[in-house]
Amino acid sequence: MADSRFFDRSGPFTLAALALRCGAELADGGDPDFLAVDVAPLDAAGPDQMTFLDNKKYVDAFSQSRAGACIVHPSLAHRAPPGMFLLLSPDPYRSYAQAARAFYPLPKPAPGVAPQASVDPSAVLGEGVRVEPGAVIGARADIGSGSWIGPNVVIGEGVVLGEDCVIAAAASISHAIIGKRASIYAGVRIGQDGFGFAMGPQGHLKVPQLGRVIIHDDVEIGANTTIDRGAGPDTVIGAGSKIDNLVQIGHNVQLGRGCVIVAQAGISGSTHLGDFVIVAGQAGITGHLRIGSGAQIAAQSGVMRDIEPGGKVGGSPAMPFTEWLRQAAALNQMVRKKGR
Amino acid sequence: MADSRFFDRSGPFTLAALALRCGAELADGGDPDFLAVDVAPLDAAGPDQMTFLDNKKYVDAFSQSRAGACIVHPSLAHRAPPGMFLLLSPDPYRSYAQAARAFYPLPKPAPGVAPQASVDPSAVLGEGVRVEPGAVIGARADIGSGSWIGPNVVIGEGVVLGEDCVIAAAASISHAIIGKRASIYAGVRIGQDGFGFAMGPQGHLKVPQLGRVIIHDDVEIGANTTIDRGAGPDTVIGAGSKIDNLVQIGHNVQLGRGCVIVAQAGISGSTHLGDFVIVAGQAGITGHLRIGSGAQIAAQSGVMRDIEPGGKVGGSPAMPFTEWLRQAAALNQMVRKKGR
Amino acid sequence: MADSRFFDRSGPFTLAALALRCGAELADGGDPDFLAVDVAPLDAAGPDQMTFLDNKKYVDAFSQSRAGACIVHPSLAHRAPPGMFLLLSPDPYRSYAQAARAFYPLPKPAPGVAPQASVDPSAVLGEGVRVEPGAVIGARADIGSGSWIGPNVVIGEGVVLGEDCVIAAAASISHAIIGKRASIYAGVRIGQDGFGFAMGPQGHLKVPQLGRVIIHDDVEIGANTTIDRGAGPDTVIGAGSKIDNLVQIGHNVQLGRGCVIVAQAGISGSTHLGDFVIVAGQAGITGHLRIGSGAQIAAQSGVMRDIEPGGKVGGSPAMPFTEWLRQAAALNQMVRKKGR
Repeated sequence: MADSRFFDRSGPFTLAALALRCGAELADGGDPDFLAVDVAPLDAAGPDQMTFLDNKKYVDAFSQSRAGACIVHPSLAHRAPPGMFLLLSPDPYRSYAQAARAFYPLPKPAPGVAPQASVDPSAVLGEGVRVEPGAVIGARADIGSGSWIGPNVVIGEGVVLGEDCVIAAAASISHAIIGKRASIYAGVRIGQDGFGFAMGPQGHLKVPQLGRVIIHDDVEIGANTTIDRGAGPDTVIGAGSKIDNLVQIGHNVQLGRGCVIVAQAGISGSTHLGDFVIVAGQAGITGHLRIGSGAQIAAQSGVMRDIEPGGKVGGSPAMPFTEWLRQAAALNQMVRKKGR
Repeated sequence: MADSRFFDRSGPFTLAALALRCGAELADGGDPDFLAVDVAPLDAAGPDQMTFLDNKKYVDAFSQSRAGACIVHPSLAHRAPPGMFLLLSPDPYRSYAQAARAFYPLPKPAPGVAPQASVDPSAVLGEGVRVEPGAVIGARADIGSGSWIGPNVVIGEGVVLGEDCVIAAAASISHAIIGKRASIYAGVRIGQDGFGFAMGPQGHLKVPQLGRVIIHDDVEIGANTTIDRGAGPDTVIGAGSKIDNLVQIGHNVQLGRGCVIVAQAGISGSTHLGDFVIVAGQAGITGHLRIGSGAQIAAQSGVMRDIEPGGKVGGSPAMPFTEWLRQAAALNQMVRKKGR
Repeated sequence: MADSRFFDRSGPFTLAALALRCGAELADGGDPDFLAVDVAPLDAAGPDQMTFLDNKKYVDAFSQSRAGACIVHPSLAHRAPPGMFLLLSPDPYRSYAQAARAFYPLPKPAPGVAPQASVDPSAVLGEGVRVEPGAVIGARADIGSGSWIGPNVVIGEGVVLGEDCVIAAAASISHAIIGKRASIYAGVRIGQDGFGFAMGPQGHLKVPQLGRVIIHDDVEIGANTTIDRGAGPDTVIGAGSKIDNLVQIGHNVQLGRGCVIVAQAGISGSTHLGDFVIVAGQAGITGHLRIGSGAQIAAQSGVMRDIEPGGKVGGSPAMPFTEWLRQAAALNQMVRKKGR
């Protein structure tokens, strides 16, 4: 059960209601009127709770789970312990997300501006906006209705936020136009100068950074991630893209729709990603590249060339993923020979 | 001498008192009543100051040092310049730490809540707590006695801090239960949502993150490091673990006791580390792994498999450390041949 | 055209004036009285705007540009579209920086202290200083004239800032002496304890960190970057050095003049860099090394040895750059053979 100091629970819900809500089907023998009072992990769930199995690594925990009900892929249903009710789903993780949201709906903070916040008189706050203590909102900023501006957040002059955005503690945003339902985590930095200098022995001269950051709808940006504004063109994050913690996005970078950028990855200036590109943790992509839609970049890769749509790469410098695996195997063999 | 604008010095202390304090022994010919007025680095220390030698790289600087006294391992004592008093210690660095703390005790800020802080009326502040300007403390938070809440810190609803914690400027903490004597550096982000999405072409659906962050006693967490809360299980940091700057700790990660995680390392979701694991700088560990107690992971390693207790690995993908060295040597040889 | 919500434009300027300002020469046939109203990227600039060509990747865009004028290297002038006026420069990027600054001068915020700021009565603010809401300035801090202290910035006790510094939102600085014209980006952490512990099974003992951070004139430090203070010696950043986002600088590190440290790089404790060293993105340098002036370290390198002045290295562990390229090629060949 989620800690009630931090989470407010709804429910209980019948299995029938949950099945409907999460696009799953009650398996034969399931009781549609069974009441689930909560969701919980496989090894912690009790007889009145619902759990899920997504990663095959945890099939044993599934077989030993005491959960009353479980969301599972049909192909693994036969591993269930006796007496457990099953909700069969083609995508158990997605179904679990929907069920868990039923039990734990997003909190709706009461609208209003805390007296310890500083809101410029020329800023526009939509209906239902809440501004927490210590937040600073600059001149002519425009905050969409239903948005939540967390404690000690800084919103710069002229910044536009769409409806229902969540800006968490101590984040700062300048020079940016942000769409609906953005979720900006604590400590995110959006809109600062890109790293543009005319370098030389007489000193590195700062190049004025005259672009913006454009963030489309339904984007999440993880804690302490940095997104520089464009140098002239804009930096653009496509709709539905999800960015993890401590990621660096350089100036003029463009992400298409639905990209996933995992923690500590870095994308250098002016590189463009297509749609649904996956960049795994600590990978780096050099500047001025084109990464095709659906490309997948393995963790710690160092990408120095364009990638075709759907291409999969690994290694540093990065190469096609299968080649990288072969190279690792060949090296392994070579050293074993030498070692004997 | 430490800059008096930033540090308040105690002392002077006799060598006898310092020897006692730092578990060292005064070498033959040392004057127990010699008064040391300060600590200083080898090359800067003067005749009334004490220094230390820990890294063999600096033996020459030791031999030329003008320091009045020096903490040193017995095996290097013969390299001392004439007239220098020696404190012999089996662990000179630890002894130096104790001596330096004698001269520079931790400051004790005066208790009280700054008028520019925002403390929810339902929050509980223990005895002797100090809250600096701009700090925001949420409903039902519980701050242990003697803790210091720095300027512009944000403590979320229900968060529990043990006694004598130090939370530095602009850090933010939510969904967390933290033990005694935690030292949380500036800009740390604890307790935000983990990076959990049910991914798919129809859009990546956020999976509610229903766990917490549990931090045991005596933990340090470096500047701008991010620790996500659990997805259902908790994220756990074991007692005495030390985490450097800009580290990423994913949801459900568990660290045992005394782990050391160096700057810019990243640990992916659901990976568990045993006790006293060392993860060097910029290393990455993929998700759902088990890293045994005492394992050591070299800088920039990319760990993709479980590691046995005491295992030492390097490289990306990571392999046993000796194999990695052999591989590097073999590659070197291969290229030299080709180059001719 | 830069978005007027975020940028205030000056001008227009004649080509003659711009040529003078940016060290360029008007090419034959150019009209010195032509009025440029703005700068813009190659593909967006219109007939009354000026653009620039620096990266050969964009020569085609240059040939198709509708810009009225363009700064270009003499060697590429022949690729200009008909009718475009050219400003010839040996360093077009630097010239563009100067022209762009003419159109977009740095804003000069009105002096004053926001009522929501907290400034210790013993702090000294120079003439023309502006302190934004939520900023907290500690006892005896000394802020140079013309400096801007952004919203929610935290300046610790005794910190010294030179003239005309810019400290962006939510940055925090302690134990530091900073020169003139520093540009500290949002979320930067300067002056916290270095990662110094006497490690051991009985617990890792914190070693008091008694040094400072010394930052010379004209330094830029990118968003969420962390610079630890010295352990005894100081951490030093040389004049004119430029540091990107999310960089880690350990205690006692010294950078010479004009160093460039790209995003997510990390420099471990006590390593010294000479002048004009370039460290590319995600590179790591281990501790206690000497990196000679003019050295260049490729992206994702892992530097474990000293580097000679002017040395160029790549790879992890790092080796001379040419050797690294040969190694990558040799591996490639090996795998291709095996793959057949």
